[in-house]
Amino acid sequence: MNIKPLGDRVVIKRLEAEEKTKSGIVLPGQAKEQPQMAEIIAVGPGAVEDGKIVPMEVKPGDTVIFSKYAGTEIKYEGDDYTILSQRDILAIVG
Amino acid sequence: MNIKPLGDRVVIKRLEAEEKTKSGIVLPGQAKEQPQMAEIIAVGPGAVEDGKIVPMEVKPGDTVIFSKYAGTEIKYEGDDYTILSQRDILAIVG
Amino acid sequence: MNIKPLGDRVVIKRLEAEEKTKSGIVLPGQAKEQPQMAEIIAVGPGAVEDGKIVPMEVKPGDTVIFSKYAGTEIKYEGDDYTILSQRDILAIVG
Amino acid sequence: MNIKPLGDRVVIKRLEAEEKTKSGIVLPGQAKEQPQMAEIIAVGPGAVEDGKIVPMEVKPGDTVIFSKYAGTEIKYEGDDYTILSQRDILAIVG
Amino acid sequence: MNIKPLGDRVVIKRLEAEEKTKSGIVLPGQAKEQPQMAEIIAVGPGAVEDGKIVPMEVKPGDTVIFSKYAGTEIKYEGDDYTILSQRDILAIVG
Amino acid sequence: MNIKPLGDRVVIKRLEAEEKTKSGIVLPGQAKEQPQMAEIIAVGPGAVEDGKIVPMEVKPGDTVIFSKYAGTEIKYEGDDYTILSQRDILAIVG
Amino acid sequence: MNIKPLGDRVVIKRLEAEEKTKSGIVLPGQAKEQPQMAEIIAVGPGAVEDGKIVPMEVKPGDTVIFSKYAGTEIKYEGDDYTILSQRDILAIVG
Repeated sequence: MNIKPLGDRVVIKRLEAEEKTKSGIVLPGQAKEQPQMAEIIAVGPGAVEDGKIVPMEVKPGDTVIFSKYAGTEIKYEGDDYTILSQRDILAIVG
Repeated sequence: MNIKPLGDRVVIKRLEAEEKTKSGIVLPGQAKEQPQMAEIIAVGPGAVEDGKIVPMEVKPGDTVIFSKYAGTEIKYEGDDYTILSQRDILAIVG
Repeated sequence: MNIKPLGDRVVIKRLEAEEKTKSGIVLPGQAKEQPQMAEIIAVGPGAVEDGKIVPMEVKPGDTVIFSKYAGTEIKYEGDDYTILSQRDILAIVG
Repeated sequence: MNIKPLGDRVVIKRLEAEEKTKSGIVLPGQAKEQPQMAEIIAVGPGAVEDGKIVPMEVKPGDTVIFSKYAGTEIKYEGDDYTILSQRDILAIVG
Repeated sequence: MNIKPLGDRVVIKRLEAEEKTKSGIVLPGQAKEQPQMAEIIAVGPGAVEDGKIVPMEVKPGDTVIFSKYAGTEIKYEGDDYTILSQRDILAIVG
Repeated sequence: MNIKPLGDRVVIKRLEAEEKTKSGIVLPGQAKEQPQMAEIIAVGPGAVEDGKIVPMEVKPGDTVIFSKYAGTEIKYEGDDYTILSQRDILAIVG
Repeated sequence: MNIKPLGDRVVIKRLEAEEKTKSGIVLPGQAKEQPQMAEIIAVGPGAVEDGKIVPMEVKPGDTVIFSKYAGTEIKYEGDDYTILSQRDILAIVG
């Protein structure tokens, strides 16, 4: 993929239900904040704080839980992706 | 559990009523903010401030009181967990 | 008590009317912000600012005036307590 | 008085109309923000910023103008006082 | 005048219409923010930032343009004054 | 002009339609934020951050695009001017 | 183009549908935030933080994805451009 996120943004691809089940995680539909699982596809260089880059905590290939309502959806070569800030990623799975 | 929270987030498992009573704490239903008790299951590396990581105050195994409305609920291998920021944890019990 | 508050939080126990009168303070019911008096039971290590811990200004045993609407109420071994941030404590009495 | 304010808070006692007139100041009832005059009774140690205490600009005995709607009213040994942040004090008089 | 503003506050006295005209400035009544002209009467020591005092940009005697809705009005020895933050002063005239 | 803006404020004079056309820029009336063109007449010394002055990016004589709804309008020796923060200037033209 | 953005602002030119398709990206009309693609035409010197300039991550000629509702539209020599902050640019494409 030739999309390079800026700052602390990442490009993610949402996982389908069967992939979630394989990892042992079920994200219930009635959850307050409706988390989602995704694979990290690309990561930005990191946010700049006080003139220094804060290293990213996630890397391409990571499976993550993120907040459903965060980010911007794009379609690239026929697939759906989301661009969002690392701040909206809750945890790495596996 | 193979869930690694990011930043200052933690994964917690809520305690049932009998466990709360054992610790001497009863969290009244009519409380303004409806606190809850939970066990810490996993902790993130800590938030980054001014380029430095702020060490976490809680560790796996701690019993904590947290604000009920904080965090995101997930289901993992049949059990319910919550991912929330350490900022939403009020105190360690015991 | 085996409750350790996190950050700059404290555990307090509200004082009854007769105890307030003894200290010379009456907190009028018609006050705009409805302050309350309490005894400090336990204190956290202090908030972290710029990587350094800011020492607490209150200690267990202090009698304090705090803002009534602040904090989270808990019941512990039959007694009522409140967990709140030191920021919501206005003054030490005595 | 045995009340020690925390941080940059102060304890003040409002001045009556005749005292204001003596100082040459009349605070008109139709003013937008309704300022008030008061005597400083007790001052806190100062706010902490970047790990350092910012010295207070007012001291006990000062006559000050403050914003009427700021602070928390208490009654102590039969008299009315207000606890408020030094930020809500506009000027020292005299 | 014996009023000493705190922090970056100043005491100003509004100028009458003829004084504005003399300086070449007319502040139109239909302006969006309704600016006003005034003379600086007294200035505070300056705001504290990161433990250091930021020097004031205005001094007593300066004629300034300020935002009409800013500040607190007081009456002192029969005259009207306004106490406001230097942040609400837009420019020095003359 | 004898108006000295404070901080990072500037005094600008709006350009008429024919002047905009000469520079090649047409600011469409249906634009979301309704930008405007103006000439910089006077600039302040710059904002203070962490005790240091941040140098201004614009200087008298610059033609700029700014956000229409920003600033305070004044009338000076028969002409209309606007005082606004440099933050509300989008770009220098030419 | 003779437009120099201030701070961390950039001037961009939106890409038409055929150009987006060529890059492999389709931005669906039903997307929550309605991202858009554009070419970077001009970039500012960068935002100032703590007295230092933060270098820009984008440069003229880059193709970017940005948030549709950000920025100010201008018309220059017959073409439409948008001035917006680099913060509103999500990613570089290609």
